Amino acid sequence: MRPLSPGSVIGILGGGQLGRMLALSAAQLGYRCHIFDPDIHAPAADVAASHICADYGDRDALVRFADSVDVVTYEFENVPVAAVEHLVSRGTCIRPGAQALKVAQDRVAEKDFVTALGGTCGRYRAVDSLEALQAALHVVGTPAVLKTRRMGYDGKGQARIYKPDEAAAAWAAISGQPAIVEAFVPFQCEVSVLIVRSATGELRSYGPIENEHVAGILSRSQFPAALPDFVTAQAISLAGTIAAKLDYVGVLAVELFIVDGQPWLNEIAPRVHNSGHGTIEGSVTSQFENHLRAVCGLPLGSTSPVGHTEMRNLIGADVDQWSQLLSDDTAHVHLYGKSDVRAGRKMGHVTRVTPFGPLR
Amino acid sequence: MRPLSPGSVIGILGGGQLGRMLALSAAQLGYRCHIFDPDIHAPAADVAASHICADYGDRDALVRFADSVDVVTYEFENVPVAAVEHLVSRGTCIRPGAQALKVAQDRVAEKDFVTALGGTCGRYRAVDSLEALQAALHVVGTPAVLKTRRMGYDGKGQARIYKPDEAAAAWAAISGQPAIVEAFVPFQCEVSVLIVRSATGELRSYGPIENEHVAGILSRSQFPAALPDFVTAQAISLAGTIAAKLDYVGVLAVELFIVDGQPWLNEIAPRVHNSGHGTIEGSVTSQFENHLRAVCGLPLGSTSPVGHTEMRNLIGADVDQWSQLLSDDTAHVHLYGKSDVRAGRKMGHVTRVTPFGPLR
Repeated sequence: MRPLSPGSVIGILGGGQLGRMLALSAAQLGYRCHIFDPDIHAPAADVAASHICADYGDRDALVRFADSVDVVTYEFENVPVAAVEHLVSRGTCIRPGAQALKVAQDRVAEKDFVTALGGTCGRYRAVDSLEALQAALHVVGTPAVLKTRRMGYDGKGQARIYKPDEAAAAWAAISGQPAIVEAFVPFQCEVSVLIVRSATGELRSYGPIENEHVAGILSRSQFPAALPDFVTAQAISLAGTIAAKLDYVGVLAVELFIVDGQPWLNEIAPRVHNSGHGTIEGSVTSQFENHLRAVCGLPLGSTSPVGHTEMRNLIGADVDQWSQLLSDDTAHVHLYGKSDVRAGRKMGHVTRVTPFGPLR
Repeated sequence: MRPLSPGSVIGILGGGQLGRMLALSAAQLGYRCHIFDPDIHAPAADVAASHICADYGDRDALVRFADSVDVVTYEFENVPVAAVEHLVSRGTCIRPGAQALKVAQDRVAEKDFVTALGGTCGRYRAVDSLEALQAALHVVGTPAVLKTRRMGYDGKGQARIYKPDEAAAAWAAISGQPAIVEAFVPFQCEVSVLIVRSATGELRSYGPIENEHVAGILSRSQFPAALPDFVTAQAISLAGTIAAKLDYVGVLAVELFIVDGQPWLNEIAPRVHNSGHGTIEGSVTSQFENHLRAVCGLPLGSTSPVGHTEMRNLIGADVDQWSQLLSDDTAHVHLYGKSDVRAGRKMGHVTRVTPFGPLR
């Protein structure tokens, strides 16, 4: 595909805050966006030229959507792979492609894929029965965490197992779905690398970004991370290897634990990522713009940080602070236009940047 | 009016690139935008929740528009004042208000207003006949420039008069409309101050910004300007006085000539301004966000520059460079989504920022 000229239409599967911020970046570059999302109140729809409101499994609606745009991307990794493959078979250009979705949708496939590339992760086993779980705990050990193989996010679909006799309760808690059991990883810190790969294979990266989670939800991210150069290099190198092997186009988030000074894989997300929201003000080019540059076949923009950057999520009732936050001269306030405040819901974020200054 | 809470709807009269960039900033703050613009292809419509496509003189459409939003602002200063006053009489909150429009729509009223406040400008006379023009040239002198009192922008509706015997040709060139004749001002440079005034009267400013025009159209802007502190203070002080006297809410652009180290008024524009596009990356808070903060009754954000900032307009076929510009790591490229490339049309802009670094 040739670079998409300004005025072209980008289709985005998923219309949450990630789609919204993608649409805002697309507008800066002169593109129009069409959003596909089953939610009539999808936050991205308010800033896009069109919104197809249908279920991700609705083939006819997906075809109509694909036929109305010049390229398709997604902000939501649980789009059915079969639907994406159907569009590809009809000639739709989808970036990143179906392979990244396939790998990222299955926690076992993801870990198998990354370990085959030489990446490290904690002990894990696929389990699809209580007996298999009990057997796996002998290998994996306790404490461990049982997670559904598919469709988990923000700590949902997970159960902790501190002692082997908690296996049955954990298995019941995830409703006996196909699962992965993972050893607890005694990490020093959690980081993410957002790697962006262009259509011509050019790689650039953000991070590592240091992340703090509260109750399974990202709370705070900051970059540059205070890590030794060699750890940084290993983390970026692993992320780049994964992206290249997937023939990935766009931003890929690689979440890592730092264990004994080594990066271990936690999980990957084939999309722009919450931990990269600080790149809007904290990097020369944001993750959103670079994802779109890749998807549209353009050269990538600089991912250099412009300062020490801290991003805090506004979760649930945190958003009630909007008025005070807007009085803080150091705060860049981002609100997602969600009318319904619910516990655990990402309502916005706040970024603060302390500039580095020019090279001295 | 109390501060507008996130999720409120902002109505924007005018859907050009200024409206588009306002809508993008509004989205960051969690607001929705409705656009009023007679052009079905209005660039702002693609990033707004709704677009009423009607003429500015269409009272019924304006009332429908005003009734669908929580506050109205404008990006286009030639909205009929009578229509705005009609909306105000029905209870619509319009910021900035009708008075700023009235003054800014008439070049004579504008200069009378500013000189009454103690501001300086070049010699000028209102003229409404060829005889009046000929008489005025005795006072104003030549070279001079004849401009329509109303509806001029980007050098349109103007004719230069180098010698008194060119008066008739100039008068014909502007089709004999009510006009102002102004002495050529032997300026050292052209600058603008963008002053933002909140609903509570708080004032902050961007600039002075140094501007270069080519063929009557802004070509390049940069800030901070290389001006003595005292000149800077005088320019900002004049802009603030104008804004306060107009009881202005929002961003007001005050264009000035620097003559013998003194700021002289050129003209004012009661809206966000092309010379401030560099504030998106070059200031802590952009002119667009601060305009919206003011309009929504929020506290203002910091207008501090983060680096030496240069903005260049992409005019007409300049936009054909989009692909090369996107390969330049130092360039922030903004395209307005206009499909029709015409000579003199503002198609986009490019900003480059060289960071200052922290205070040392």
